[in-house]
Amino acid sequence: MTAYTPPVQDMQFVLHDVLKVSESPLPGHAELDREFTAAVLEAAGQLAAEVLAPLNAVGDREGCTLENGVVRTPTGFDGAFAAIRDGGWTALDCDPEYGGQGMPYLLGLATGEMFVSANMALNMYQGLTHGAYSAIHAHGTDAQKQTYLPRMVSCEWTGTMNLTEPHAGTDLGMLRTKAEPQEDGSYLITGQKIFISAGDHDLAENVIHLVLAKAPGGGEGTKGISLFIVPKFLVNADGSLGERNRVSVGNLEEKMGIHGNATCVMNYDGAKGWLLGDLHKGMRAMFTMMNEARMGVGLQGYACAVGAYQAAANYARERLQGRAVTGDANPKGPADPLIVHPDIRRSLMDQKSFLEGARMLAFWGAHLIDQAHNGDKAADGMISLLTPVIKGFLTDKGFDTTVLAQQVFGGHGYIEEQGMSQFVRDTRITMIYEGANGVQALDLVGRKLAADGGKPIMAFFEMVKDFCKENAGGPLAADFIEPLKAASKDLQAAGMFFMENGMKNPNAALAGSYDFMHLFGHVALGLMWGRMAVAAQAALDAGAADAGFYETKLATGRYYMARQLPMTATHLARIKSGADPVMALDAAQF
Amino acid sequence: MTAYTPPVQDMQFVLHDVLKVSESPLPGHAELDREFTAAVLEAAGQLAAEVLAPLNAVGDREGCTLENGVVRTPTGFDGAFAAIRDGGWTALDCDPEYGGQGMPYLLGLATGEMFVSANMALNMYQGLTHGAYSAIHAHGTDAQKQTYLPRMVSCEWTGTMNLTEPHAGTDLGMLRTKAEPQEDGSYLITGQKIFISAGDHDLAENVIHLVLAKAPGGGEGTKGISLFIVPKFLVNADGSLGERNRVSVGNLEEKMGIHGNATCVMNYDGAKGWLLGDLHKGMRAMFTMMNEARMGVGLQGYACAVGAYQAAANYARERLQGRAVTGDANPKGPADPLIVHPDIRRSLMDQKSFLEGARMLAFWGAHLIDQAHNGDKAADGMISLLTPVIKGFLTDKGFDTTVLAQQVFGGHGYIEEQGMSQFVRDTRITMIYEGANGVQALDLVGRKLAADGGKPIMAFFEMVKDFCKENAGGPLAADFIEPLKAASKDLQAAGMFFMENGMKNPNAALAGSYDFMHLFGHVALGLMWGRMAVAAQAALDAGAADAGFYETKLATGRYYMARQLPMTATHLARIKSGADPVMALDAAQF
Repeated sequence: MTAYTPPVQDMQFVLHDVLKVSESPLPGHAELDREFTAAVLEAAGQLAAEVLAPLNAVGDREGCTLENGVVRTPTGFDGAFAAIRDGGWTALDCDPEYGGQGMPYLLGLATGEMFVSANMALNMYQGLTHGAYSAIHAHGTDAQKQTYLPRMVSCEWTGTMNLTEPHAGTDLGMLRTKAEPQEDGSYLITGQKIFISAGDHDLAENVIHLVLAKAPGGGEGTKGISLFIVPKFLVNADGSLGERNRVSVGNLEEKMGIHGNATCVMNYDGAKGWLLGDLHKGMRAMFTMMNEARMGVGLQGYACAVGAYQAAANYARERLQGRAVTGDANPKGPADPLIVHPDIRRSLMDQKSFLEGARMLAFWGAHLIDQAHNGDKAADGMISLLTPVIKGFLTDKGFDTTVLAQQVFGGHGYIEEQGMSQFVRDTRITMIYEGANGVQALDLVGRKLAADGGKPIMAFFEMVKDFCKENAGGPLAADFIEPLKAASKDLQAAGMFFMENGMKNPNAALAGSYDFMHLFGHVALGLMWGRMAVAAQAALDAGAADAGFYETKLATGRYYMARQLPMTATHLARIKSGADPVMALDAAQF
Repeated sequence: MTAYTPPVQDMQFVLHDVLKVSESPLPGHAELDREFTAAVLEAAGQLAAEVLAPLNAVGDREGCTLENGVVRTPTGFDGAFAAIRDGGWTALDCDPEYGGQGMPYLLGLATGEMFVSANMALNMYQGLTHGAYSAIHAHGTDAQKQTYLPRMVSCEWTGTMNLTEPHAGTDLGMLRTKAEPQEDGSYLITGQKIFISAGDHDLAENVIHLVLAKAPGGGEGTKGISLFIVPKFLVNADGSLGERNRVSVGNLEEKMGIHGNATCVMNYDGAKGWLLGDLHKGMRAMFTMMNEARMGVGLQGYACAVGAYQAAANYARERLQGRAVTGDANPKGPADPLIVHPDIRRSLMDQKSFLEGARMLAFWGAHLIDQAHNGDKAADGMISLLTPVIKGFLTDKGFDTTVLAQQVFGGHGYIEEQGMSQFVRDTRITMIYEGANGVQALDLVGRKLAADGGKPIMAFFEMVKDFCKENAGGPLAADFIEPLKAASKDLQAAGMFFMENGMKNPNAALAGSYDFMHLFGHVALGLMWGRMAVAAQAALDAGAADAGFYETKLATGRYYMARQLPMTATHLARIKSGADPVMALDAAQF
């Protein structure tokens, strides 16, 4: 079993040294001074480390069970979920009008990282509820909000997203689930949905399903889709639970990982549902949920890897194997710890330098969301641009990080007992759900680059340029600014290639979309490391007490710039080779 | 469940168009004409596809069980193993003196690829036996050979390798298992070994363990190690089975994958064993097994991914989702097949171009082994150099390939039912066992580069240079020769960096060892693709009947050169950043 150490100091650094959140003019942010966030993060970290983490392996081993239509979660999940709920963690960034605490999304994301690192499968029950909460909050009628939100904020009731059908995953236009309007204004929903995370369970009194279905009179494809609220138990006028709705669990999927979360086949057999938002505008309402969900999945991608990295670093410090080539480091012991070996360092530094950059990017993204919620159009454009990068890049690299961490354990990493396999298996799903990463790349290149006349991408380049200008010639120029400039130039060259070739041949851009997403991710992390380096250097210059922390930060950043950022050249080379090598074969020739 | 299609045509291409094996002056190779190898490969392929592949998912689901000291393999494994044995497949490249068929190792490797693609866990029972056979064949006394080899050639008895102990994995010098000499010349072996693949099972009458242990009078560390033959059942003078030896299975490990293979904790409680090879020279004897085992694991790495790739290509052709951006490809259907999408192509081409290059490299490696066995010193030096590359690079990239293949399935790839998770979980072990890939990189940079005064690496560079010279200016110059030259230059620059910096600071070389292994792998695959391109072009120029096959080959090679080979630049940049970024932190700062 692996222990979990909440990275409170690093989060504090991001929040206060870099983002300077309490100086932000946003509502709620003034409260976020160092002492307050430290207290919140310490408390969340304690819950994560002491209550959630010990159940992570239990959840993996036991999984969920379906018996006589009832889904049971693994031993201890009910108590831990109650602890999350009772601590008010599910309500942290929700609207006070419905029982929330009105904190910024950023703070919710920070505590969420800890919960995911400790127990991703368990945290999904509240994560999905938050997504459903947001959709109802954004698109629901007052009555709907009053009926559902208070219990969802408290997670007395949990939520789900029902999109996928057996024949329709990414291509939602093909979905078949039907909604028949009734005289009382409700609809009867009929169809089958698959891969429904937290679809049913024994952790809450009610489950509020948000279901995409086709109501009569809509257009073909996605135009005919509406979104419906379909509760597991109907809710009486007084808020008490009424009769059981005609929705049931057909099956639990056997999955590679996240065994502690119930992934359900949901059967709707004329279940009662209510329209959420406008008729035939379901995709728009769904995207409210999806954008938040994609941020959340990007978070999962690196947060799960944080747990894996910590375990690997501990193992490397403790496991004695071989001798340092530069002389015994542990002469009295039978061998030196693994961590003396340069190749183990290479692995740990790849992990650490990615993860701290990823945290910075996710936190910045959350901060942009808070700004966007406050009406900041530029922030809205920027986070819209960054969302596929955060989802796609952080989950791909997060998964790679878990594999690196597992590898540090050698043969012991392959044995389930050690817990490293679970990190790999759990993290793997983040590359797939809420839009497989290829779809994120398509969203980035096919929609987000050109969005709003290209303003967001130009703003990103400006931001990098300004940052480089401000810090040119300073003590960070050689190690941080020059590499960032070079990487950004690669990204611009890739964008230019798309512009010059994508109009004549859209495949020329799409064949490079995945590499572009990664190229963008590296430049974004390069910028994040640049900002962190500036903040760390400022702290050192100001004579900060914990100089070791800031020096470590600079050294970790230098590693990223020197050894990870050069990937941009390879991605650019791949992009510039265009569509021909990619599209050369007939389908039969594969 | 996934189907398996034996890649007979591609293997024939490698054997005859590129390696031209039947023109080789090696013993047994003259027999390998097109018709003969086609017949062998067809037969092996049929067994793989019809008998082994259908049991792959069964093995994963059921796993092995240990009850009252008896290990049971999954349903059907006994019949399939008998079919392999009865078909003579285990004897293919073994010494005719002991019942083998005396075929080249190359042919054994080719059939082995098919068996691994179809069912890796099952094939391990014979694979490990072959390794133990080779060690006894190379180091055993005549009596030992007579006693053990005939039954091991036929796999009536299987073999194992016992190296690892709980506290000693890579660092074998620390092992504690003891061998006490007895008056009759035998030894009593006492100790615990872990991670013993095929350690016990119900597929054979006897299991012949090769066990590393320390006998009195040896030096410290690895110098005191000897290798022992420890049969599960003692063998009587007439060859019949005698009493049960004092070796037992302590436990079966629960692993991430290869569930169909019994990974055992083996307890030796004064078990009777016999010295194999020279006293205190066990490491040397073990390396006979290990080098073959490392080739075999490299084979597993890409062969398992072949199965995953085939499934992904089939799924991409069948699954209807979305529309081609360049116009509907399946206008009468509800959507186009996945394979129309450039990003799906990007994934499939990355898979295909790696796998065909990997096959070529593994086959060439096997051919070198045949040459080395025939006394060719240069071939021996070359395969010794290439072994860590084949093991490390092909397994890392093989694993990545299974992840790519799984991703093509979207959410369906995460569900165990589809079989894609198994490919990922099974392949993952190949990066770890027989020396974790970091150890391969260390072997490459720390030993193999300087071996024999650097002759093998110089010979490799000469080979690339000559190849480029021979084909300069021809029709393949731009797409194949120029990229290969550039990549080879990166490899030489990396070697130069090690030479210039590694003497002063060994960490400067070791910090780049992993990247060097990958850089080397890419250049090796670039050379393989160059050779395949020349062969394909020659076939086209000669008016070959199946022009489509050769054109596909050229297109696949062009993809590799344009989109995978550029990775060398990133690896070189990482290497040249040296040891400082890697070694900057104290152990406590991770």
